[in-house]
Amino acid sequence: MQGEPEVAVLRLGHRPGRDERMTTHVGLTARALGADRLVLANAGASRQDTVEDITDRFGGPFDVEVTEQPNRFLKDWSGSIAHLTMYGLPVQEVEGEIRAAHRSEPLLLVVGAEKVSFEVYERADWNVGVTNQPHSEVAGLAVFLDRLFEGRELDREWEDADRVVQPQPEGKRVVPAEEAAETADE
Amino acid sequence: MQGEPEVAVLRLGHRPGRDERMTTHVGLTARALGADRLVLANAGASRQDTVEDITDRFGGPFDVEVTEQPNRFLKDWSGSIAHLTMYGLPVQEVEGEIRAAHRSEPLLLVVGAEKVSFEVYERADWNVGVTNQPHSEVAGLAVFLDRLFEGRELDREWEDADRVVQPQPEGKRVVPAEEAAETADE
Repeated sequence: MQGEPEVAVLRLGHRPGRDERMTTHVGLTARALGADRLVLANAGASRQDTVEDITDRFGGPFDVEVTEQPNRFLKDWSGSIAHLTMYGLPVQEVEGEIRAAHRSEPLLLVVGAEKVSFEVYERADWNVGVTNQPHSEVAGLAVFLDRLFEGRELDREWEDADRVVQPQPEGKRVVPAEEAAETADE
Repeated sequence: MQGEPEVAVLRLGHRPGRDERMTTHVGLTARALGADRLVLANAGASRQDTVEDITDRFGGPFDVEVTEQPNRFLKDWSGSIAHLTMYGLPVQEVEGEIRAAHRSEPLLLVVGAEKVSFEVYERADWNVGVTNQPHSEVAGLAVFLDRLFEGRELDREWEDADRVVQPQPEGKRVVPAEEAAETADE
């Protein structure tokens, strides 16, 4: 989030066709829950377009890029690295340490699809399990970000949005961003 | 979770073919993060089988059922209902009230896919947004459950597991459940 060291999410192991929607959900979750950047390894440009389209409509800043060399990206990363995996240490035991590190340096979160190479486990400063149960990389990322930011991400403000959802007890209300800004000024 | 009023997750709007993996991830997330039961509206039995297979291997209790009459299920639900939607009230504002209600009665969480009918918004006691941004029903469910249970779900114990993942700082370790129980007794 702005005013803090960067949090980037590296999505590894995307399998074209099979993983399109999961990769999109990883990207949208990263954006909605406070990450600054999404890096897609070997994913088609169509995933990048989908996430950028949401940012165009609902605001940012949020960057999306595609890398063909994820191992190089990991090797060159300057900051700490947390790899989310059901085989890792319990999030509730390591989150404090990761949060403390993120106060002073960028954090890369690595989120795999099916198989992740052993080099990633070695390169990571922390291998972290959001439970040691099989579930969903989208769920793991979401819980991790909410804990990392301690809920601050839910109050994030968005820039250059085209439209804004206004929370309702019932039903749906979406207004142009200019109108939302006027209401906020009242 | 055991010893508490039930939390069930109703997955609405499953579209065969398109939503298979998302529905599986909703189900596995519900199980891993402390819900007691998954109810699938109009989903094929194959989704039920996938989630039950994980429960057989990694433990329970966790129930999965399919309903062909989700509206009837909603109408007949005895307890409170929270519907997760990006149009709803901010989770950080309503979670305390929902948590308090759940101390004395069952809670049904409704998670949609694409379109959810207006009747669901009306029937719900709370329409809740985990942010008012478009992201993922899997991410929304995960953050909601982690907040509802205030992290207790991460320490849940599993019964009748066939195998257990033992958390590691690096690499993977999966042991037969009997062996894990022996280690725990030492």
